[in-house]
Amino acid sequence: MVKDLKTGDIFRADHLVEAVLEARLKGDKEARGVAAVPVDAEKEAKSKKKKVKSTAVKLEDSVVAEIESVLAQIDNYDGPGLQSLIEKFEIKAPETGNDLSKPVEFNLMFDSSIGPTGQVKGYLRPETAQGHFINFARLLDFNNGKVPFASAQIGKSFRNEISPRQGLLRVREFVMAEIEHYVDPTKKNHAKFEDVKDQKMRLLPKETQSAGKTDLLEISIGDAVSQGIVDNETLGYFLVRISLFLTKIGIDPSRLRFRQHMANEMAHYAADCWDAEILNSFGWTECVGCADRSAYDLTVHSVRTGSKLVVREALDEPKIEERTVAVLDKKTMGPKFKKSAKIVEETILALDQERLNCIGRELEQKGESDVQAADGEKYVLTPDFIKIERKVFKEASREFTPNVIEPSFGIGRILYSLLEHSYWAREKDADRRVLSLPPAVAPIKCLIVPLSGNEGFRPLLRDVSKKMRSAGISCRVDDSSASIGKRYARNDELGTPFGCTIDFASVKNGTMTLRDRDTTEQLIGKMDDVIAVVEGLCNAEIDWQEASRRLDAYSGEQAM
Amino acid sequence: MVKDLKTGDIFRADHLVEAVLEARLKGDKEARGVAAVPVDAEKEAKSKKKKVKSTAVKLEDSVVAEIESVLAQIDNYDGPGLQSLIEKFEIKAPETGNDLSKPVEFNLMFDSSIGPTGQVKGYLRPETAQGHFINFARLLDFNNGKVPFASAQIGKSFRNEISPRQGLLRVREFVMAEIEHYVDPTKKNHAKFEDVKDQKMRLLPKETQSAGKTDLLEISIGDAVSQGIVDNETLGYFLVRISLFLTKIGIDPSRLRFRQHMANEMAHYAADCWDAEILNSFGWTECVGCADRSAYDLTVHSVRTGSKLVVREALDEPKIEERTVAVLDKKTMGPKFKKSAKIVEETILALDQERLNCIGRELEQKGESDVQAADGEKYVLTPDFIKIERKVFKEASREFTPNVIEPSFGIGRILYSLLEHSYWAREKDADRRVLSLPPAVAPIKCLIVPLSGNEGFRPLLRDVSKKMRSAGISCRVDDSSASIGKRYARNDELGTPFGCTIDFASVKNGTMTLRDRDTTEQLIGKMDDVIAVVEGLCNAEIDWQEASRRLDAYSGEQAM
Repeated sequence: MVKDLKTGDIFRADHLVEAVLEARLKGDKEARGVAAVPVDAEKEAKSKKKKVKSTAVKLEDSVVAEIESVLAQIDNYDGPGLQSLIEKFEIKAPETGNDLSKPVEFNLMFDSSIGPTGQVKGYLRPETAQGHFINFARLLDFNNGKVPFASAQIGKSFRNEISPRQGLLRVREFVMAEIEHYVDPTKKNHAKFEDVKDQKMRLLPKETQSAGKTDLLEISIGDAVSQGIVDNETLGYFLVRISLFLTKIGIDPSRLRFRQHMANEMAHYAADCWDAEILNSFGWTECVGCADRSAYDLTVHSVRTGSKLVVREALDEPKIEERTVAVLDKKTMGPKFKKSAKIVEETILALDQERLNCIGRELEQKGESDVQAADGEKYVLTPDFIKIERKVFKEASREFTPNVIEPSFGIGRILYSLLEHSYWAREKDADRRVLSLPPAVAPIKCLIVPLSGNEGFRPLLRDVSKKMRSAGISCRVDDSSASIGKRYARNDELGTPFGCTIDFASVKNGTMTLRDRDTTEQLIGKMDDVIAVVEGLCNAEIDWQEASRRLDAYSGEQAM
Repeated sequence: MVKDLKTGDIFRADHLVEAVLEARLKGDKEARGVAAVPVDAEKEAKSKKKKVKSTAVKLEDSVVAEIESVLAQIDNYDGPGLQSLIEKFEIKAPETGNDLSKPVEFNLMFDSSIGPTGQVKGYLRPETAQGHFINFARLLDFNNGKVPFASAQIGKSFRNEISPRQGLLRVREFVMAEIEHYVDPTKKNHAKFEDVKDQKMRLLPKETQSAGKTDLLEISIGDAVSQGIVDNETLGYFLVRISLFLTKIGIDPSRLRFRQHMANEMAHYAADCWDAEILNSFGWTECVGCADRSAYDLTVHSVRTGSKLVVREALDEPKIEERTVAVLDKKTMGPKFKKSAKIVEETILALDQERLNCIGRELEQKGESDVQAADGEKYVLTPDFIKIERKVFKEASREFTPNVIEPSFGIGRILYSLLEHSYWAREKDADRRVLSLPPAVAPIKCLIVPLSGNEGFRPLLRDVSKKMRSAGISCRVDDSSASIGKRYARNDELGTPFGCTIDFASVKNGTMTLRDRDTTEQLIGKMDDVIAVVEGLCNAEIDWQEASRRLDAYSGEQAM
């Protein structure tokens, strides 16, 4: 990061240099009268980079070429490298034009110290994924040593963002949920893919983006996988599940798309990666990532910890293979090579098939051969201690590092988008707002309102709310003195999907009404029947149409 | 904290001084041949204090008196105070006898810095409770301005313990769950107390402890409250709920007790406080606290933030009261007192009833009176601008700060104790271990095992596991090649309460067996019937006895 030396404002050095140089190129194009390449406004809006205004100033051709070359490799500059760019191109703080400090490193992880000595550093985790990989060996064991299996986790992560912004979208403490699904790299098909293959998806493949377009491709996931747009069935299966999850909790399907990572934004090890992006007032926002991360994470953990993170799979039929091998007589080698014997042996055992065959031919034809060992010396090989033979090998199992498909959910971003998609105003009265959370996610599923404060309603209120709780329906009694219309209205705004009213007919006939938040339609029936219908609606076993068949329509008048 | 100057070992200074002085008193008693007061060994074992061995050394009577006086107020010493005690009593590091460093303050909260400047300090929360109080005003509003209501939360807390120990019992990062139940301080009865009043509790009241005993009082919560052992119904209600919760998840009731805080360990503001203590291999361990914290937290938050955290309650009958008031004529006061007018007015309005009555009498008798204002000046009061009158006031509402009853759960400690209470070995074979987690908390409710790897079982396995998942039963297929006995045994050890076996009779007759983990008893029935029984068992709607009525007994032989 660099600091504006006068105001103390802080910028990410790499982003600032990039933005300033891009602005100069743009200004140069304007000055030359060349139409600038149209910019994806949405993408621009959600970019992390500081915006820098361009001014129409023509640059030397050589300067343009140099800037273009710098920008093409901007991610490769370290602190001193960025400093030399800042000096060379006389980059100042945007807006103020003040001088900038030298770039200093800034760790995006929050640090603390553990224990009383203050000498043990600790960090708040910047992502939850590592916890999965650390537990991989145990999970594999739990799954009887077989893949596929998956682990799932939800928890907080922390990143010390230089400038948190956009409400809940970029914050320093956030909740993530993640699945790591481990698969055999040679078998990325999915047992349940058949069940979802006709599911239509709205995709934005990388080719479309490369062409500077944002047209969505509506395609079944089955076709997307078979046409190679989505890399494999398992990845495709999870894209469908993510889509179904998001729409089930109330995300507007017309404001949801899956954008594929372009080659330059995807991690080098990833086989394929798609982001579920949701359109909200900040633009298309990445809310769920779904990547095929290949064997990268397990390999890195394995290398660092020195513990094997692999699956051994028994082969249906043992693999039979003939291979050339060197058979060594160590008793002869010992006295012959003395302390070099070991290095000669290791060198020979590390030779590949072709080299062994060559040595075999030389031994046969010339009676000797030689190898250069790791110590740089050349050693002569003679038939008294080395024989080159063909042998048959039978392997009953294979060993592989599983690949991992990782759907990763930004819970705060999903929740924020959900609130935006759910909040609307009634046509007749714009002051009457509704939060249309589906029953599955509404914190309170059913409102219970007495018509008035009449004492006769109390036992019924208690009874109904007790029965609803027993049925697992989270409910709430609103017995405040506000009018019934007002009470409905404010609970509509709180997102409560259903409402039951206890009135004089309830006391007399044991009936109550059921109101649907979104349509304000009302039904009426015996209390227990209404509760059963609410339970069915909350568990998504029936819809309102079916509820209307099971209960009578209610027009506001009750047979008394 | 203080440091052993040679080894670098670190101690809590207050605990160390206390432990050393207590050991000296004990040694003195031994030297004098006085039987030491029997110590609650369990309590001792779980004390946070460093253990210090006593040696029989007789002390001067004056020294004994001084040490006793110091110990009585040990919590009141600050750093320099502790330093002077260390010097005066020549306290050294226990075990090594080395000199100690001066006490330095040690913050038990983990700190970090927020944002890029490094100048904004942040701390990891040491408890979750404050989040409730910060949200109190909003929650009250959501509850239509009325108490009682409660908020509940679960989350991580962090304390930089000097020496974490005892496995999961004292750790630096832990999960807490908390309820804050807000009540009217004049109405601490509870609407559902009647439902639980006969529940028997195992209590260790403070009086028993003061007498140096640990005998448990078995008493119904109704009697405990009516006899004043437990302060109020709401507190009692939550004690019952805690007890029911713990025993329902599998805590052994005979290793559960509720210990009341003694006067000296209870926070000064608390009305009453009980800990649910569970006996495990580390002794009786505090796992849930349940305190009536009175109005303390809300009052402190209110004072610090300047926002009112109170409930306004409409009175059933308005309160009518006659009060003496001063009626001021500000038009006269202005010219008379000039810029002192305001302070005179404020002084008069702050006077109490008695003083006002007195002024009234003086004005009547002498035609004048006087007051001393906050500026130290005395001002003469005359009837031209002040009249003392009796007025009738009618108050339609009262305002109060709710009290809070706080059950607070240490999830890690409960889980650790639960594992200890659940783990046992079969009588016939001590190598066969069982983890008797009740279905409610077992991560996997039902094991599904095929008799062998026979291909004919596959469709049935898929079918049964799909139906179980639809019924909300978390299940797992163990189709490894181990013998069926071995597969049952290892899943017993994993805590899976039920097991279903698919065998040739399943293919032929559509039956499967159901096995109970704890008794190893087996039943048999049509697959759908067995699934329905498992569902009933998992939801605690039926017990094994009822299951045995609905399904046939299975002896290991099947009618083929």
